[in-house]
Amino acid sequence: MMRKIEYPGIAEWPELVKRPTQNFEDLEAGIAQTFQLVRVQGDAALRELAQKYDGAQLENLLASPEELAVAESLLSEELKQAILQTYSNIQLFHAQQAEQSKPVETMPGVTCWRKSVPIDSVGLYIPGGTAPLFSTLLMLGVPARLAGCPEVVLCTPPAKDGSVHPAILYTATLLGIAKVVKAGGAQAIAAMAFGTESVPAVNKIFGPGNQYVTVAKQMLSKTGVAIDLPAGPSEVLVIADDSANPAFVAADLLSQAEHGADSQVVLLTNSAEVLSQVEKELQAQLELLPRKGFAAKALSNSIGVVLLSVEEMIAFSNLYAPEHLILSISNFEEVLDKITNAGSVFLGNYSPESAGDYASGTNHTLPTNGYARAYSGVSLDSFVKKITFQHITPAGLQNIGKTIEVMAAAEGLEAHKNAVTIRLKEVKNV
Amino acid sequence: MMRKIEYPGIAEWPELVKRPTQNFEDLEAGIAQTFQLVRVQGDAALRELAQKYDGAQLENLLASPEELAVAESLLSEELKQAILQTYSNIQLFHAQQAEQSKPVETMPGVTCWRKSVPIDSVGLYIPGGTAPLFSTLLMLGVPARLAGCPEVVLCTPPAKDGSVHPAILYTATLLGIAKVVKAGGAQAIAAMAFGTESVPAVNKIFGPGNQYVTVAKQMLSKTGVAIDLPAGPSEVLVIADDSANPAFVAADLLSQAEHGADSQVVLLTNSAEVLSQVEKELQAQLELLPRKGFAAKALSNSIGVVLLSVEEMIAFSNLYAPEHLILSISNFEEVLDKITNAGSVFLGNYSPESAGDYASGTNHTLPTNGYARAYSGVSLDSFVKKITFQHITPAGLQNIGKTIEVMAAAEGLEAHKNAVTIRLKEVKNV
Repeated sequence: MMRKIEYPGIAEWPELVKRPTQNFEDLEAGIAQTFQLVRVQGDAALRELAQKYDGAQLENLLASPEELAVAESLLSEELKQAILQTYSNIQLFHAQQAEQSKPVETMPGVTCWRKSVPIDSVGLYIPGGTAPLFSTLLMLGVPARLAGCPEVVLCTPPAKDGSVHPAILYTATLLGIAKVVKAGGAQAIAAMAFGTESVPAVNKIFGPGNQYVTVAKQMLSKTGVAIDLPAGPSEVLVIADDSANPAFVAADLLSQAEHGADSQVVLLTNSAEVLSQVEKELQAQLELLPRKGFAAKALSNSIGVVLLSVEEMIAFSNLYAPEHLILSISNFEEVLDKITNAGSVFLGNYSPESAGDYASGTNHTLPTNGYARAYSGVSLDSFVKKITFQHITPAGLQNIGKTIEVMAAAEGLEAHKNAVTIRLKEVKNV
Repeated sequence: MMRKIEYPGIAEWPELVKRPTQNFEDLEAGIAQTFQLVRVQGDAALRELAQKYDGAQLENLLASPEELAVAESLLSEELKQAILQTYSNIQLFHAQQAEQSKPVETMPGVTCWRKSVPIDSVGLYIPGGTAPLFSTLLMLGVPARLAGCPEVVLCTPPAKDGSVHPAILYTATLLGIAKVVKAGGAQAIAAMAFGTESVPAVNKIFGPGNQYVTVAKQMLSKTGVAIDLPAGPSEVLVIADDSANPAFVAADLLSQAEHGADSQVVLLTNSAEVLSQVEKELQAQLELLPRKGFAAKALSNSIGVVLLSVEEMIAFSNLYAPEHLILSISNFEEVLDKITNAGSVFLGNYSPESAGDYASGTNHTLPTNGYARAYSGVSLDSFVKKITFQHITPAGLQNIGKTIEVMAAAEGLEAHKNAVTIRLKEVKNV
């Protein structure tokens, strides 16, 4: 169960908000070998490693048109409806993020603007294993499509029989992704970074994964391939006052805890009574969970903290900078402006984290591990570059020229100055 | 002089767009030692290293209020006017980038929105040396202030006499930056990442620098401190047809080349005549430059390429993904939509790169080294996090609940499902 801490002094907070450090540096040498193998042998390396790690014998690395076509018939109507509804909600929310940039005439004749241009080619990684994360595919694929990225590649590890879960294939088809590559782990990341016969090299790689995938993405980000976000274990912080429903709070904490033993779960409350009620609920609900083992371990690394006031709880939360923040307090409207560090915020008693994890429309790829202090979650922005443009007329250059010449001269950059001077001379001569 | 290549086949392009590889890994061990020194000894380490690398004996690491106050009187009226005009232009352009996000009701009772929240604390690094880069301070400081970042710290190396250039101090004061730290190199980056007695730890570090600064920022980005952009040498690509003015083109190429011997300069033209005229102009103008040595070296690493058409030149440029792109062609309006990879674009014969480097209002901190394929330049976005919020009413949860339950069950995450089920039960009972 959670460790309980009552009324810690502010001096103790920095220790309490620390995440367990993860050090994966000993994986780097092995991953560098995988990179080299994929670079040199291309598809052959992917086949060899699918055999080795996934136990799958693959003739074709790509899911065939037949596999993609049949997937729909293998899903229940209920699931297809849920996927379509989610698609629509994510699309509605992310469409709003398109930038409406207008040209700005900063001085007469000097016009500047900015334009969002899709990234040419993006790669999405979706982990395999027990749970087919088609929700993550929607979270990445819908904004990629909205942005208009011309090429979208999906890598996901195959099952032993060489198949990919039909929910993944169906969702890929909905998204218009025809290139579904049966590759997992660091080798999949390498394939998308370097390209192979079957896999085009991409400009940016998105998606979660185990420590091999995480370290591979981090290593590649040093070489010019962009990545979505630095990764860490998923986490939730719940702020609950005596208006909170302890059963709901416990359910939210457990929905985070079931992700894995390293999930981070924090409960802040200004009521010792709420804390003890939540604990009772946690025990009762935990018993019923299929992923009880994971959840119990995650809870044993987690904390429940009693603080004096809502203000203190918000301050603690801002210091922690949670990926997910749930405000189960009566006056949440009044504190919204005080939240400075969080990935995504859930307001009131009827906004569970799982709404945002799946279907409400917000993105679930969010900054963990305190990165919310400086990073945003994935959005439409993640799939575009914002290119600036400027056009200056001869009269505009006469207006701004002196300023540029004076600045350039003061910085000792004469050629910068001369690029203006040589033009101004010509304008005067006309 | 530039290497000339006439009508290269598309198969040769990938080799032509490659930048020289830079490998600074051998610097990492030394920089890790500097990190350790600053971590353990704080201000004392900064004083010791200022003595060692800058030859400066510092009592106080911070510029004093007196130094800041006197700076204005040490600058010419002309320079102060230029700085104020630039400040105003950058502010006008970047203010336009503020997000106007409206709540979206993705389903009845399910409301989602996104809010830009300033990063709590940012650090700006401004290199020292021969040129006081107050222009970079404006490019970083103006959006930091517009975003509303509560804490902005500036680090810049001191001169031997312990002073900082008055143009830097004056600009800092304009920006309301009171904490000007006399520290340079990897030690300055370490101080902003870890904090010392005089320097607060920040959430994100911005600014250019030598290879020590670059590697230090890259190393820290693995540990949770965000950085503005991965760095590489500055570069320009000019596309010129026979409407271009060869003297202007040469002046633009030289204004890039004077940055340093590793600057990248590329000229594309569909007219062999333009190329030879530009070469003559380069020779003539180069002779007059104080930074002739740098510029000549940069030119010797650069290429002038003759291609068949404007379409080919745009395609080559997109493959190169230049930091700065100048379109000295008559029909630039018609090709704007074909530009997919560039940091900042300058249109027509009277929009020199130095306008954007200094004063037009666009940002000059831009993606180099091909990073423009996936990264944007610094903007207001760089100084905020975009936090998503959602509020679901009981009726809203009844609308969206089934979708969440079905998705969660299909992914095998029962606790996620239960967080909805437990609430829906309660709603029905009310």
